[in-house]
Amino acid sequence: MKIGILGGGQLARMLALAGYPLGLDFMVLEPAADACAGPLSEHVTAAYDDPEGLEKLAAACGLVTYEFESVPAAAVERLGLSLPVFPPAGALATARDRNHEKTLFNELGIETAPFVEVHDLRTLKKAVAQIGLPAILKTRTLGYDGKGQQVIRSGDDLQAKWVAIGEVPAILEGLVDFDREVSIIAVRSVSGEMAFYPLAENVHHEGILRLSTCLPDDSHQPLAEDYARRVLKHMDYVGVLAIEFFQVGSHLLANEMAPRVHNSGHWTIEGAQTSQFENHLRAILDLPLGGTAPVGHAAMVNLIGELPDTSAVLQLKNTHLHLYGKMPRAGRKIGHVTVREDSERALQARLAQLQDLM
Amino acid sequence: MKIGILGGGQLARMLALAGYPLGLDFMVLEPAADACAGPLSEHVTAAYDDPEGLEKLAAACGLVTYEFESVPAAAVERLGLSLPVFPPAGALATARDRNHEKTLFNELGIETAPFVEVHDLRTLKKAVAQIGLPAILKTRTLGYDGKGQQVIRSGDDLQAKWVAIGEVPAILEGLVDFDREVSIIAVRSVSGEMAFYPLAENVHHEGILRLSTCLPDDSHQPLAEDYARRVLKHMDYVGVLAIEFFQVGSHLLANEMAPRVHNSGHWTIEGAQTSQFENHLRAILDLPLGGTAPVGHAAMVNLIGELPDTSAVLQLKNTHLHLYGKMPRAGRKIGHVTVREDSERALQARLAQLQDLM
Repeated sequence: MKIGILGGGQLARMLALAGYPLGLDFMVLEPAADACAGPLSEHVTAAYDDPEGLEKLAAACGLVTYEFESVPAAAVERLGLSLPVFPPAGALATARDRNHEKTLFNELGIETAPFVEVHDLRTLKKAVAQIGLPAILKTRTLGYDGKGQQVIRSGDDLQAKWVAIGEVPAILEGLVDFDREVSIIAVRSVSGEMAFYPLAENVHHEGILRLSTCLPDDSHQPLAEDYARRVLKHMDYVGVLAIEFFQVGSHLLANEMAPRVHNSGHWTIEGAQTSQFENHLRAILDLPLGGTAPVGHAAMVNLIGELPDTSAVLQLKNTHLHLYGKMPRAGRKIGHVTVREDSERALQARLAQLQDLM
Repeated sequence: MKIGILGGGQLARMLALAGYPLGLDFMVLEPAADACAGPLSEHVTAAYDDPEGLEKLAAACGLVTYEFESVPAAAVERLGLSLPVFPPAGALATARDRNHEKTLFNELGIETAPFVEVHDLRTLKKAVAQIGLPAILKTRTLGYDGKGQQVIRSGDDLQAKWVAIGEVPAILEGLVDFDREVSIIAVRSVSGEMAFYPLAENVHHEGILRLSTCLPDDSHQPLAEDYARRVLKHMDYVGVLAIEFFQVGSHLLANEMAPRVHNSGHWTIEGAQTSQFENHLRAILDLPLGGTAPVGHAAMVNLIGELPDTSAVLQLKNTHLHLYGKMPRAGRKIGHVTVREDSERALQARLAQLQDLM
């Protein structure tokens, strides 16, 4: 079967790499001529909402998925008229709007940081009074990798902050003094089978994920799985879903979810029995899900902006290089490196060696 | 860099799957329009010796490799004038001729079954007198998967056997009463770094490989590595080389070598720290070689002729499906399944479950 993907970036590329061994073929719809997934798929070079491009996808594919949550809702709707699109449109609509997303979390009994809707400067002022400072002003939609966010501290000019995020619908959220940031990669198939990967601890810098470390047997695993299960079931979800949490003591505060394969799950390619990419495909094809148990001790380091000496990276045993075929540019994710070792101690030692090459 | 591959079958497909994460792109030269590697590479649909096709490869690629040993020598020579071609032409010439191959093994002090050249019916009779029966008559070139071979037993009509292999240059080889068939996957980079995978035990049926099981810490490993090292060094070899042996007691009799990634090394995709496909690419690009240590206990089962119920296969935890995108046809390799478990015992139990689905 041919799988259509809206978006042809690194996530589409890794989906294709995981899917060929399952006997699948791929077609991506992506406006950029130099799409990462282009060389290993049929590439329809058109806007995501281009009727002709969508028609091509619908005619050639048996199923469509997407690799980013800001895919136009109209495109998903249009495709949905002629073939299955997973994850479901409802999940996409919820996940792309921070207010809907956090409201849903709370409705499902999942803790979040305190948050309030913001429409204009007046409601921003009111929100600050309600939430207190410091807090973060976040656009409701189109934010990723720290974009569309402004931290507000006591004494800051609220008007300037409002302008900085583009004067668009937003939320103000209490700044959480967290112990760790963690995420869970969950997956649910068409027929409702569910599986959960071990939590990953995530380290961000300048709003961009830098390091994800698999946490086998973490004490927060049962709570994270319980929360993820509530979301999957409520949304009748199909595919991989990532939920990011702030961990504060024994609490997990849900920060956001992504209705797709996720950067904090890249370690699963070598570090789990089945990768998140393969399991996303199995889920949307209603095939049995693959095992999610960790293989050894794994972590993933993102390559941001520029390439390290790749030969030196490959010199390190038990590391795996994943380049996306992208031109280096400041702040751009151009690849990642996975380290898999037999012990936590060996993993940390190898990560230190790797860090020296960055 | 773009890598050119002569041949677009499953080996080219798996080379491409291993190479994209290294940041490589691929172009295959392959006459079949429905080549396995076609959907994930640029596919030049032309004969292997088509001057225009070779020109395209030479113009677009930085390096050329091949996936089968019967690639026309003239094509390799022609490409070699404008860009590096690995493994080297000399290894190709030796490996494609059983007489040269076995003569080289003996010259390097590597044991083989007794063998004698056969040119015609007269020399076949002489060979039978010298080697004794039972024996195998094998064409010198173009034999694979048991094709071009005839077992001769006492009382058989020699003329009929000679006609059966096509009356072409051949060797007669003593039939070895072996304990096991094993193979080693060896790799050597441009700058001479070498690495060796654990031996695999191979089970053939009707001349076609069915099952390869990784043998961690086998007592024959040092001898196999010693033999492989002699061949790699002698041929100034670059890339992956597979050598198949008959094991008889403490002896290893070299049967044949393949100057390419090899079916008996497919278990390395999940069962070794680095796959044979990635290490072949690292070797020809003169990158540091990846670790060859086994990950758990692994075995590979070929899917021949027809597909099992793939959903039932995927239901088995710790198994990995690899389909080649080929139409099923009797005797055709259309995919393989790798099983990776934590113990030899669990591996054998899982293989038994898998066998039930075949």
